[in-house]
Amino acid sequence: MKFQEIIQQLGDIAQDNSLITQGGFAPSEAHSSRNPEIEGVAAIDKAVSGQISYIEGGKFTQYLSTTNASALILPQDDTLKAQATARGIAWIATTQPRLVFAKAIALFYHPYRPDVGIHPTAIIDPTAVIGKEVYIGAYAVIQQNVVIGDRVAIHPQVTIYPNVEIGDNTILYSSCTIQERSKIGSNCVIHSGAVIGAEGFGFVPTAEGWYKMEQSGYTVLEDGVEVGCNSAVDRPSVGETRIGRNTKLDNMVQIGHGCQIGSNCAIAGQVGLAGGVTVGNGVLLGGQVGIANQAHIGDGAIVTAQSGVTHKVAPKAIVSGTPAIPHNLYRKGAAIYKRLPEIYQKFKEFNQYLAKLR
Amino acid sequence: MKFQEIIQQLGDIAQDNSLITQGGFAPSEAHSSRNPEIEGVAAIDKAVSGQISYIEGGKFTQYLSTTNASALILPQDDTLKAQATARGIAWIATTQPRLVFAKAIALFYHPYRPDVGIHPTAIIDPTAVIGKEVYIGAYAVIQQNVVIGDRVAIHPQVTIYPNVEIGDNTILYSSCTIQERSKIGSNCVIHSGAVIGAEGFGFVPTAEGWYKMEQSGYTVLEDGVEVGCNSAVDRPSVGETRIGRNTKLDNMVQIGHGCQIGSNCAIAGQVGLAGGVTVGNGVLLGGQVGIANQAHIGDGAIVTAQSGVTHKVAPKAIVSGTPAIPHNLYRKGAAIYKRLPEIYQKFKEFNQYLAKLR
Amino acid sequence: MKFQEIIQQLGDIAQDNSLITQGGFAPSEAHSSRNPEIEGVAAIDKAVSGQISYIEGGKFTQYLSTTNASALILPQDDTLKAQATARGIAWIATTQPRLVFAKAIALFYHPYRPDVGIHPTAIIDPTAVIGKEVYIGAYAVIQQNVVIGDRVAIHPQVTIYPNVEIGDNTILYSSCTIQERSKIGSNCVIHSGAVIGAEGFGFVPTAEGWYKMEQSGYTVLEDGVEVGCNSAVDRPSVGETRIGRNTKLDNMVQIGHGCQIGSNCAIAGQVGLAGGVTVGNGVLLGGQVGIANQAHIGDGAIVTAQSGVTHKVAPKAIVSGTPAIPHNLYRKGAAIYKRLPEIYQKFKEFNQYLAKLR
Repeated sequence: MKFQEIIQQLGDIAQDNSLITQGGFAPSEAHSSRNPEIEGVAAIDKAVSGQISYIEGGKFTQYLSTTNASALILPQDDTLKAQATARGIAWIATTQPRLVFAKAIALFYHPYRPDVGIHPTAIIDPTAVIGKEVYIGAYAVIQQNVVIGDRVAIHPQVTIYPNVEIGDNTILYSSCTIQERSKIGSNCVIHSGAVIGAEGFGFVPTAEGWYKMEQSGYTVLEDGVEVGCNSAVDRPSVGETRIGRNTKLDNMVQIGHGCQIGSNCAIAGQVGLAGGVTVGNGVLLGGQVGIANQAHIGDGAIVTAQSGVTHKVAPKAIVSGTPAIPHNLYRKGAAIYKRLPEIYQKFKEFNQYLAKLR
Repeated sequence: MKFQEIIQQLGDIAQDNSLITQGGFAPSEAHSSRNPEIEGVAAIDKAVSGQISYIEGGKFTQYLSTTNASALILPQDDTLKAQATARGIAWIATTQPRLVFAKAIALFYHPYRPDVGIHPTAIIDPTAVIGKEVYIGAYAVIQQNVVIGDRVAIHPQVTIYPNVEIGDNTILYSSCTIQERSKIGSNCVIHSGAVIGAEGFGFVPTAEGWYKMEQSGYTVLEDGVEVGCNSAVDRPSVGETRIGRNTKLDNMVQIGHGCQIGSNCAIAGQVGLAGGVTVGNGVLLGGQVGIANQAHIGDGAIVTAQSGVTHKVAPKAIVSGTPAIPHNLYRKGAAIYKRLPEIYQKFKEFNQYLAKLR
Repeated sequence: MKFQEIIQQLGDIAQDNSLITQGGFAPSEAHSSRNPEIEGVAAIDKAVSGQISYIEGGKFTQYLSTTNASALILPQDDTLKAQATARGIAWIATTQPRLVFAKAIALFYHPYRPDVGIHPTAIIDPTAVIGKEVYIGAYAVIQQNVVIGDRVAIHPQVTIYPNVEIGDNTILYSSCTIQERSKIGSNCVIHSGAVIGAEGFGFVPTAEGWYKMEQSGYTVLEDGVEVGCNSAVDRPSVGETRIGRNTKLDNMVQIGHGCQIGSNCAIAGQVGLAGGVTVGNGVLLGGQVGIANQAHIGDGAIVTAQSGVTHKVAPKAIVSGTPAIPHNLYRKGAAIYKRLPEIYQKFKEFNQYLAKLR
């Protein structure tokens, strides 16, 4: 595909989709004197001739002087534009290079989408209601009273327990499990090995040992939710576990029983939420973060990787560490932590000196 | 079900089960002048008319003035009893409200239990021995010489490797795997995606690279053990990995080769035990705790969430942090950590001042 | 098997394999006056009569005075040799007792290896190319254009997506998934529930919410790689995620999109690597370590358990803590952390005293 055609197609996307126009994509700013044939996409330090890449800033900027890419998506930076022009690299500029690059990838690559159809080995209970144009793969098991929307893709080896509902266009990758009392919205993606709606970890201590509390509640994933490989979203004893619209969970994320997560959050790999946690909208949780029982994270807050939240994080706060404190304070503390041995040495000297003074 | 009938039924349970009588459940203390129809259970802040809920204390107490619940399970607190009476809410009081609530849930909800029977697609090796009244779901695979007890439920897509033993009443949820040299007790629950008895991570460093140590030992889960979704309990090179009676593991818990865990422990989500760890009875490990090779946790100890234990925790100790230290010390340290920048500033002032003095 | 025969067989291995001769195994050094019948292998503190065990040093040395083992593999330590001789225990000595013990295990135990053959329920797309002498278990699903090498073992319930390549002798345990655009080398082991090649966690923030970046790259596992149960190695947006030759991953390890991991690394349980991380050769990552986006770990470095790396670790460095600092500094800091309350108390006294002085 010629570079000018890529610009044209990204422009067409822009007409359908305000993302690019909001992103400041301005085709007239492209370095249009060159029109190389583009055959694929690559990272800037790996790109070969015939590929398009991007620079968002930071350490990747340095590769502009050495990249073999034939075309680049640049930020609105005159120095970079001039440098690309000088090297004879075709380019377009935008305030959102990563977003435009994502759209460029989609011009060259279409992920595997199995054909519509129900594999003869899929076991579908006669009481299940199946939508139009679905794919149901080999050895999938769909139990009583399940309701499956239109254009749903259920990959091989998936098990869906009784009474589950799955919305339109949702994809369930191989070997995931959707257990009873789960309701999955439209346009969701559940990756391989994920388990939705299993019993929450509810045991009451008694003199005789653990008494198992039945988990009689519901697990609800709103539209556009994505759940990573081998993650688990548990069913609560009462009420709901709920994940809000367009919230994305990475791999091996644990969502305990009764958590309420808002919309448009991003929850990185191996994060764990204990029971009854409430998370606002637009929250970012870094990898391996842990959130204690009943804690609350306000809208737009960021919890950096490996931090632990025990009580409450204010809206838009950025917190770090275990127990989590404001990020700036944490960074200063961490810087001083390295000097604790030196400080302690001085402290002992003071002590001696003051003992003499007194 | 009428409230009085609930009390009656909980009373019947009490006769069979010392938990409630020990819990101080006293029907005569109930506010019996009201006898609403109860249709379900809910959390106190979510309950609607016709539901029963509970208060254990803490922050939930505040909801007593606003809840729409028709009935409550209260702690032995005269103020709360009076307040419920004044609001016209039926109630019973007990020293263990959460336990009684768990029993109330069980009056209204019965989890999905598949009917007894073997699905025609289940593949059962002719040498396997299958107990009475079992359920074996679609596409389950049971290999040579496996022994399955009575009333076992093996959900769809489960694979059981050769020579495994499964005790009576145990439930294996969909897509879990039980590998060779595993012995699962009675009344166990293995959740979806969990893997029992896979090879431990045993590699010996050599000049030529890693030499794989065969894992020739056994994996034993005693009666009443529960293993959460996508958890793994590994097989050791020699001897046993053993999880004691009634110990409960949450989701994504990693139990390394050769660990010995006592009875009645609760191990929260994403905890990881390296190899050869020994854990006593009644131990509580918070979420994301890590325990190093060969470390030991004494009976009744508590390791709080995200902590790391490198050597030894004394019986009944409560420890926190990485490396874990006594919880009280940790809390004080964490409080001071926040003030490190301020302390460091003062420290520099001292330094200057003392330099002048000398 | 007689002890002398074990020595003989380990000697035969030694002739084929420089590991043992390098290990300093010297049969002439064995205490050959005794030649007990050996029926199995065990840890030194658990061994019974008729078993062979080993001592590598450390706390296990103490068990030499009490062990019931009939034979021991000892380090080159004259005191231990004399003690074993005095107790009438047959022994051999080597500089690598653990390695020789691993080889002894292999004399007594052969892991379950299913017979060659394709189960009639395996679904193999007609376009797939299957090597010689393979095992393909019940309900395995192999999709279009998959290429499977010779002597590969594909256990029950495995799903292999279109176009995947699997090298010779590789083992895929039950219920693992290999997704599109994955290439698995020879002699690899993928444990149950692991997912190779699923979409990386790539979402671009926009004013309208998350825009999903297609993951068009490849996932490559070189020869001899092992991936633990329920781990995930993600496919990147462009380029490759690559795990180098003979690198071993334990259970529940998360490898983000675009990571480049060298050869001969060992990555312990529950480690998480965000996107674009580069790891050198021979790196050791302890359990629950987290590595941030684009961070780099140099050859031969060690990151101790639960640490968090945000930027860069130098070759051969040993680092600890979050954010990770040199291990020695971390240990000193941790020792002082415990004394922070005491230091803080003194600090307040200084403050008062100096206030008086001024």
